[in-house]
Amino acid sequence: MKNIRLTVQYDGTSYHGWQVQKNAVTVQQTLHDAIYKATGEHVHLIGCGRTDAGVHAKAYTANFFTNSTIPPERFMYALNAHLPDDIICSESFEVDAEFNAKKSAVKKTYSYFIHNSNVGDVFCRNYAWHYDKPLDIAAMKTAAAVFIGTHDFVGFASAGLTVSTTVRTIYSLNIEKTSDRIRIDVTGNGFLYNMVRIIVGTLVFVGGGKIDAHTMPDILASKDRARAGITAPPEGLILTEVYYK
Amino acid sequence: MKNIRLTVQYDGTSYHGWQVQKNAVTVQQTLHDAIYKATGEHVHLIGCGRTDAGVHAKAYTANFFTNSTIPPERFMYALNAHLPDDIICSESFEVDAEFNAKKSAVKKTYSYFIHNSNVGDVFCRNYAWHYDKPLDIAAMKTAAAVFIGTHDFVGFASAGLTVSTTVRTIYSLNIEKTSDRIRIDVTGNGFLYNMVRIIVGTLVFVGGGKIDAHTMPDILASKDRARAGITAPPEGLILTEVYYK
Repeated sequence: MKNIRLTVQYDGTSYHGWQVQKNAVTVQQTLHDAIYKATGEHVHLIGCGRTDAGVHAKAYTANFFTNSTIPPERFMYALNAHLPDDIICSESFEVDAEFNAKKSAVKKTYSYFIHNSNVGDVFCRNYAWHYDKPLDIAAMKTAAAVFIGTHDFVGFASAGLTVSTTVRTIYSLNIEKTSDRIRIDVTGNGFLYNMVRIIVGTLVFVGGGKIDAHTMPDILASKDRARAGITAPPEGLILTEVYYK
Repeated sequence: MKNIRLTVQYDGTSYHGWQVQKNAVTVQQTLHDAIYKATGEHVHLIGCGRTDAGVHAKAYTANFFTNSTIPPERFMYALNAHLPDDIICSESFEVDAEFNAKKSAVKKTYSYFIHNSNVGDVFCRNYAWHYDKPLDIAAMKTAAAVFIGTHDFVGFASAGLTVSTTVRTIYSLNIEKTSDRIRIDVTGNGFLYNMVRIIVGTLVFVGGGKIDAHTMPDILASKDRARAGITAPPEGLILTEVYYK
């Protein structure tokens, strides 16, 4: 059997996230069905993590074992022939049997886009949070620095966690503004449920003056979800890169 | 009566172009209906020109006369409240009674985007032509220079013209490649039906080696549609700017 690794990009607008659910169209199910059509096999598809409904991916990583004779590098074309136009497999290759898209991942980068203008932009309506009030980028950067490092992020996670620890390490958190577009890149060893969206929602509260940047260390230490900002909407979030050893 | 000028952006993916048609959803009709909901008036909405099904606009210009008491600068908000999320009015203001979005226009810029890669990109699938073979950008630039100036573009127009002259002036035609994205900007005093898309299709034929760049003067002089390239697909085209005196 071969272990095939896939890189997949998807527009999450029409999907209920990555993970298979009853009575909902998910990316995992759609990809599984495309593999079935290409190979005749019902494979167990391992993804690098869950993404929520409406969240996008530029380079989602998945793997599966197959007896198919399709050359590993050609799998991407075989799958694209059966995938809808909002999911594209951009890379496929064989990896060691030990490779596991979820367990082998050591680092992930998510990017969050905000369209910061009094008027919306039709071309990024599904790919950015339209926020129409001014934001203090300098204050947001001050607050962002507080998240860097290893912390218990339980106050920055939605309820329903099933993880053994809520401690995570954030390696970098960059905020960049170009005209009316704000891009926030977060790289960490892992993220709790809704963690990136809550961090972004909190930074926007700081930028809008609802939270003082200098109280951020307190808020993080309080582990109190109620003291953080709102959960930013899903459409602005994209999984940009997954890193492996 | 006040003459109100609007700047409108739209994602043309779901529309049968600008102009009102029977049994088809158009941008003009949708905007007309929003004005009716905001003012109670059935106005005559003048647009700066037709755009085809699937073509987009970043700054389409339109005008209409109204007795409404809505302050001209507030019209954009009144309309956005009634517009679907793929049409946004980004500007509204009062202009002289003489202003006519179509007749007063002196220049227009269209931009065409090509995603030039062996793999598609889900995020620009509705906003770029996915062309998967290599393109010789230098040859395309050589060919593009031939279009600059005043020429009879009848060979670069689709059948069904109802214009008095097929002579048009192109002021600039720039091609720029950044990684796998090619952007072609064309500015002219006016464009025949499908003219920009046929110019782009012809440039792509040049880039792909199907047409020799040095035969372009001949092809343009021949006025023969059959010698030009294909009509590039609509999704890559966007009306970027309309200029008035």
